[in-house]
Amino acid sequence: MQIQRLALLALPFLLVAAAPPHDPAKLRDAALKDDTAWKITEGLTTEIGPRLAGSPEEARARDWAVQKLKSLGFKNVRIETFDIPGWERGEERGAIVAPYPQPVALTALGYSGATPPQGVEAPLVAFPNVAALQAAPADQVKGKIVYVGNEMRATQDGSSYGYFGAVRRSAPSIASQKGALAIVIRGLGTDSHRVPHTGTTNFEPGVTPIAAAALSNPDADQIERIVADGKPMTLRLVITPRAVGPRQSGNVIAEVPGSDPSAGIVAIGGHLDSWDLGTGAIDDASGVAITAAAAKQIMDAGRPRRTIRVIWFGSEEIGGLGGRAYFERHKAEPHAAVGESDFGADRVWRFETKLNPAAAPLVGRLEAALSPLGIAKGSGSASAGADLGPWVRAGTNGIDLDQDGSRYFDIHHTADDTLDKIDPAQLAQNVAAWTAMLAIVANAPETLVAGARE
Amino acid sequence: MQIQRLALLALPFLLVAAAPPHDPAKLRDAALKDDTAWKITEGLTTEIGPRLAGSPEEARARDWAVQKLKSLGFKNVRIETFDIPGWERGEERGAIVAPYPQPVALTALGYSGATPPQGVEAPLVAFPNVAALQAAPADQVKGKIVYVGNEMRATQDGSSYGYFGAVRRSAPSIASQKGALAIVIRGLGTDSHRVPHTGTTNFEPGVTPIAAAALSNPDADQIERIVADGKPMTLRLVITPRAVGPRQSGNVIAEVPGSDPSAGIVAIGGHLDSWDLGTGAIDDASGVAITAAAAKQIMDAGRPRRTIRVIWFGSEEIGGLGGRAYFERHKAEPHAAVGESDFGADRVWRFETKLNPAAAPLVGRLEAALSPLGIAKGSGSASAGADLGPWVRAGTNGIDLDQDGSRYFDIHHTADDTLDKIDPAQLAQNVAAWTAMLAIVANAPETLVAGARE
Repeated sequence: MQIQRLALLALPFLLVAAAPPHDPAKLRDAALKDDTAWKITEGLTTEIGPRLAGSPEEARARDWAVQKLKSLGFKNVRIETFDIPGWERGEERGAIVAPYPQPVALTALGYSGATPPQGVEAPLVAFPNVAALQAAPADQVKGKIVYVGNEMRATQDGSSYGYFGAVRRSAPSIASQKGALAIVIRGLGTDSHRVPHTGTTNFEPGVTPIAAAALSNPDADQIERIVADGKPMTLRLVITPRAVGPRQSGNVIAEVPGSDPSAGIVAIGGHLDSWDLGTGAIDDASGVAITAAAAKQIMDAGRPRRTIRVIWFGSEEIGGLGGRAYFERHKAEPHAAVGESDFGADRVWRFETKLNPAAAPLVGRLEAALSPLGIAKGSGSASAGADLGPWVRAGTNGIDLDQDGSRYFDIHHTADDTLDKIDPAQLAQNVAAWTAMLAIVANAPETLVAGARE
Repeated sequence: MQIQRLALLALPFLLVAAAPPHDPAKLRDAALKDDTAWKITEGLTTEIGPRLAGSPEEARARDWAVQKLKSLGFKNVRIETFDIPGWERGEERGAIVAPYPQPVALTALGYSGATPPQGVEAPLVAFPNVAALQAAPADQVKGKIVYVGNEMRATQDGSSYGYFGAVRRSAPSIASQKGALAIVIRGLGTDSHRVPHTGTTNFEPGVTPIAAAALSNPDADQIERIVADGKPMTLRLVITPRAVGPRQSGNVIAEVPGSDPSAGIVAIGGHLDSWDLGTGAIDDASGVAITAAAAKQIMDAGRPRRTIRVIWFGSEEIGGLGGRAYFERHKAEPHAAVGESDFGADRVWRFETKLNPAAAPLVGRLEAALSPLGIAKGSGSASAGADLGPWVRAGTNGIDLDQDGSRYFDIHHTADDTLDKIDPAQLAQNVAAWTAMLAIVANAPETLVAGARE
């Protein structure tokens, strides 16, 4: 009886010992207890802080990353540099001059033009959205400061960012074409704090960049209330950023070498640069941390079939420039699958795949390994994020682990993007999901490289 | 049968028609549907915005208030001015210089001294709380920038503000006495946003005011993380507020005249001034709005026995100076009862009284009228707030309608104190509670004036 009991107790341990080195369930559950991702997120946001694309701080972050990735045991750790058009924030102040004098909280959009150093003061003309600005005759806009509202609300999957983001991407260029002196928009944040939400804008070729800034939601509310009251409004803006010519940026690359070079690379990562207002915790220290911590789980368990390449991209925030540079430089190398973590650190709730036919069997294995983490199978529309998206569009297998974005745009691109916004338990769930995914994909017996398909 | 039914249906209407003009339950329920308080809060925060004690904006707010209170039908609307020591915010910037260079978000405390225009740069010495700073030898502090943490957490009744507020009230004076160049504290906010929390500090007589600023919680976290790591830290501060000599402030007073001048005045109100960072919505546009809207409910229903005096105090934020000025000027006038609304606009959850023996019967009547709003009877410790507290301490009956303060210090004294933080339904519940209280107290048959007690 005693002996029988002992044998029964020993059975699970024997089974575990007999499991393959990259058993997805076992590694997944171990990853839930690992604090590597937390330490990377904490280190990067504390020891570097804000790290704008092309800045000395982004360069310091690359050096920090090399040291960190080497110390974690990764191989072939290196920096691949590239040049970007530099831009630096200047002064930024705004005030309602009439009818009700008071300051407003705003921040320049990336690649905003500048007002004169002494600022501009002009009547405000307000539009509820980009379409209304687009439809307005130029003489309604010329010589004025334009305001454009928007209706973005939080969604779990973040899908409204693309749709409502037009106000940031396009409205400044349209306003400039119609002769506006400057433009302020309701920022894309979904919070109600006086921490405005930056992000790049684009001026079409030939269009003069004008000063373009985002207001916090309480400030946009204030302006819309006064406009609704029918009172003519005058605004004063001092917004003095500068385009500073070419600056160096770079990607940091690290590898877990695989045993079968012909099986292709599994490329994962996040981006190392951040906006300058916060310390880039959810965007995207957590993404580089999650993917590196997951790759380390695989590395520590043994050599995978495929090389896992962890890429911490530079200059994502100003147009995915690090991702483009990586694609151009590496497009001849066979990639088996790609995936980026760039949507914060709240729990993964869904996985999406975009797979070549030969890779189809992965879906069932991913489903089995991820569903115990509360992760549902999606509809088959992975994008691989801003940095690795070019690969998916070129036919490489893509796998997304979608984070819950319900509060992402409360924080994203604002001064509020700081470490306290990261929930360690949800961060660990992310690492567990990425670990399980890598255990499956890096070791899959199928032929995953598109060009090498039988 | 038909006739019987009609008679039954008519019965409630007949009962209502027979009720006295100031039936507390009837007026209370009508007040739940009134938007006067919302309109005052919206108007003051939109048309005036920030209104620092002694500023031109506070003067504009007084003029706005006179016009508003007259238009609502109040009598004897007037301004009573008094002088205060003026103080104006200047530049305020801070950065960690070493070991990890990055900016920090901070704001000067009221009556802070200034750094030189070019700022100060010095080693940081950190203390977890005021007691630790107090115990430190001067040579540990001299020539340095002091940091003091604190442990304030949100409470429903706001009671931790008094206890933990010592860090703001006292630490700067102690640091100056020990030879510190400047001081930064973890602000008293309970939020995690980069919107630091201001408020007055006090330098003891003979102590040189040094630059004193509050960090937002994420920034205080950052500093404490680096300190815990054992790395020496250097901070740079540019904080240039100015003491600007005497400035005019004032109280705005309006009345609902009573039928019995010998019965004493019921004095209620809130404060008109606000900190300069936000638009003073919860602190305290809502308080002046709630008390005026409730008084108007009584006024519109008929003449009460006692005169209700609505006071919108000036310069509360810098030491309750408007309340002191009112007490000095009016202390000879018989006051029957006093109460201030100065804790936001979330729902009233408790009422507190401090009553003379003759006023004791009020408690049961208040309980009956307030409990249907979910308001519990407290333990008998009303203070009547910063502005009307002197009356309670001098023996006048005090009645508090305590708001739920669970999120009050998330917003209080920050740039985030804006209209969007007010929940119209909870604001209306406040007005209903104040209306019921006034209906009872202003018409009570008892002798309420302390000196006139039989």
